[in-house]
Parts: sequence; C-alpha cells; structure tokens
Amino acid sequence: MQQTQTVIEVVTSGQGLYEFSRPLRQFATGSGIRTGLATVFCRHTSCSLLIQENADPDVQVDLKGFFSRLVPQHMPWITHTLEGPDDMPAHIKAALTQTSIGIPVDAGSLVLGTWQGVYLFEHRSAPHRRQVVVHIIGE
Amino acid sequence: MQQTQTVIEVVTSGQGLYEFSRPLRQFATGSGIRTGLATVFCRHTSCSLLIQENADPDVQVDLKGFFSRLVPQHMPWITHTLEGPDDMPAHIKAALTQTSIGIPVDAGSLVLGTWQGVYLFEHRSAPHRRQVVVHIIGE
Amino acid sequence: MQQTQTVIEVVTSGQGLYEFSRPLRQFATGSGIRTGLATVFCRHTSCSLLIQENADPDVQVDLKGFFSRLVPQHMPWITHTLEGPDDMPAHIKAALTQTSIGIPVDAGSLVLGTWQGVYLFEHRSAPHRRQVVVHIIGE
Repeated sequence: MQQTQTVIEVVTSGQGLYEFSRPLRQFATGSGIRTGLATVFCRHTSCSLLIQENADPDVQVDLKGFFSRLVPQHMPWITHTLEGPDDMPAHIKAALTQTSIGIPVDAGSLVLGTWQGVYLFEHRSAPHRRQVVVHIIGE
Repeated sequence: MQQTQTVIEVVTSGQGLYEFSRPLRQFATGSGIRTGLATVFCRHTSCSLLIQENADPDVQVDLKGFFSRLVPQHMPWITHTLEGPDDMPAHIKAALTQTSIGIPVDAGSLVLGTWQGVYLFEHRSAPHRRQVVVHIIGE
Repeated sequence: MQQTQTVIEVVTSGQGLYEFSRPLRQFATGSGIRTGLATVFCRHTSCSLLIQENADPDVQVDLKGFFSRLVPQHMPWITHTLEGPDDMPAHIKAALTQTSIGIPVDAGSLVLGTWQGVYLFEHRSAPHRRQVVVHIIGE
C-alpha cells in the first residue's frame, strides 16, 4: 500500500466554476496507483468543490445563477459585512456545497462518470489563487 | 492493509430516495475488513447521495418535497433546457447534496448511527439505472 | 501503513455551530501518522458537519441565520411533525450540509487552511450529546 499527495492551484477570476479534472487525472495516473481512493480537499471557506456535468457549459452558468439567487448579496439581516458584500454569501454557498470529495481509483484512473468534471466553485468576486490538496492511497 | 471495490446498481423510477444500506452493509461485512474506511461515490450528476433517517418514511417524502420547492422546474432564467425541464433542477439538487460519502468501518461494520440509512437521491423523472462505486480500505 | 479511530463527543445546547477542531487536531497529532487521510463522520441525521471560517464569530451567526430562513419551522406542507417542529427542518438542513468530510494529513497535521475550523452544526433545539467518528489512515 502506498500514498501520494500534492497541491493543485486553481487561479480564479470571479464567481463561477473552474474545472481541474485534467491536472487531477494526470496526478492520479502518474501516481502509479491502480486501485485506491483519491481525496480532494479545498483549503478555503469562501470557495468549494463540486462534481458536475462537463458537457454543456450552460449547466455551469445555471449553477452559478441558482446559487446567486438563493444567496444574494445585501441580505438585510447579515452581520458579517466587514470583508465585502460577497464574503458572507460566499461562506454560505461553500456550506451548501462541498469542502472535500472522495473519488475511488480503479484500473489506474478515477472512477468519474462519463460526464463528470471536478470543479472548484469560486464564490468571491475578486481574483484568487486557491489551493486544493489531493491525497491518493492505494496500490 | 487491504482494499476492495464494487459497484452497486440502484434502479430508480422517478424522483425520490432509494435506500441501498443493505447491499452496502453486506459488501462491507463480506469484505472481511474489521477496521477501515468505506467510500461511496455516485457516478452521475443528476442524482446524488444522502445519509438520512430510515425510521419514518415521511422524512423521505418531506426531503423530496423540500428540494422540489427549493429548485422547481421551469425557473424562467434557466438556460440548460435541452434535456428536459427536470434536468437542470436535477444538477442543482445534486450540487446541494453529496457526490461521495466516507463511512468508517469498526468491528467489521459501517459505523452508521441507529437511524442512519444510505440513499441514492434520484432527481430525474424517468427511470434510470444508477451506479454507486464502493471502495473499502482497512484490515 | 497504519490506522486509528476514535469518537469525539460534542455536547450541544441548541441550534448553531460547535467547533471541535482542537480535539480533532490533538487526535491527529497524537496518532503519530505523518501523511494520510482523516475522515470525520457524523452518526446523526439531525445535525451535520461543516468546515467554516473560525476567525469572525459573526460568520457562524449568519450561517445559522441563513439556514433558519431557508428551512423555517412550521412549513405548512411538512408531514413529519411527530418529533417536534424543529425535527424535519433539522433533517433538511443536514441534507444540505455534510455527513462526512475527508481531510488529508501532511507533516503530522491536518491540512486545514489558516481560517478553517471543523464544526458540528446542531439543527435541533434541545440539548444533545453528538458522536463524531474520526478515522485516520496513513503512515
């Protein structure tokens, strides 16, 4: 049994989904682990992780649209406003999605379905450099 | 340390929760792994995973009711409509719930609480055959 | 490769976020595992897990405020009312957040970001003793 770990940096420029399936798959394949478990972990509380359809880009537009409507800026009861109007909605959107996702590895590849892409979901408006830790264990 | 992996197929017939705790527990027990970690992973983006109460079936009815109200069909701003009125709401409901869940194994069994059942949450209206990958590592 | 497991008990007194980063970090450090994967798992369906900002306590107030508005008590269509007006909303809030979170371990510590704290999110009004199972595998 062996394990390996890396950090994938995702550069963001405003709210939306940023796919990092390619570097993730490359790391998994390069690890030489044939069967195992990969875990992706987001080291932030104002962006999050999501596995979603990577076929039609409209899906990503609508996901962003839904979350912006469900958690709008300037909700009058918000108290945490010091870091800007997009900060508390960002924390809430992160709470509604995922901080970590476990993906089994089989025959040397992640077992993602045909249409599944792995995304960082950026909830802040300003550009950021985000860190996703990837851990793989197996053999 | 050892590991084992399988695919549980969940046959669905419309939106709602489908429990697969029994085949999951059987696979865990049959693996011979006494202590470890089980990971369930959903290979789709229009259904998802949920651990919920398995005592009163009303809980499942109300969960389905809440998500149908929170993410209704025919929201006027939706752009991804090509695959039917239930498709984009399905992606959103999947984003709001879980794609993978890790469950520790202790004394040869999943450490689920007394009332916890493991469900596939189907978000599409048409019947589907869904694949859940189960990976267990431990000894 | 080795593994270790424990249960962290979180005592709650009403709805809100209860941080247990400290006992979790202590268990991880005490395990002697330098590189690996920690998994926290909540054995209940009316509370859940969340990684969130631990700097400004207002964030926790607003998170609780958002979920109470999104899933209010006494929604007229609810059928599961036997266990009190806060019970079904609790199940829904749990479905919207997380039951398990995987956190990689590097250099003997959880790879949590600077501002990330690990919380049990209690959704019931009455006091409870909640069990979080922690499993760590690595070497």
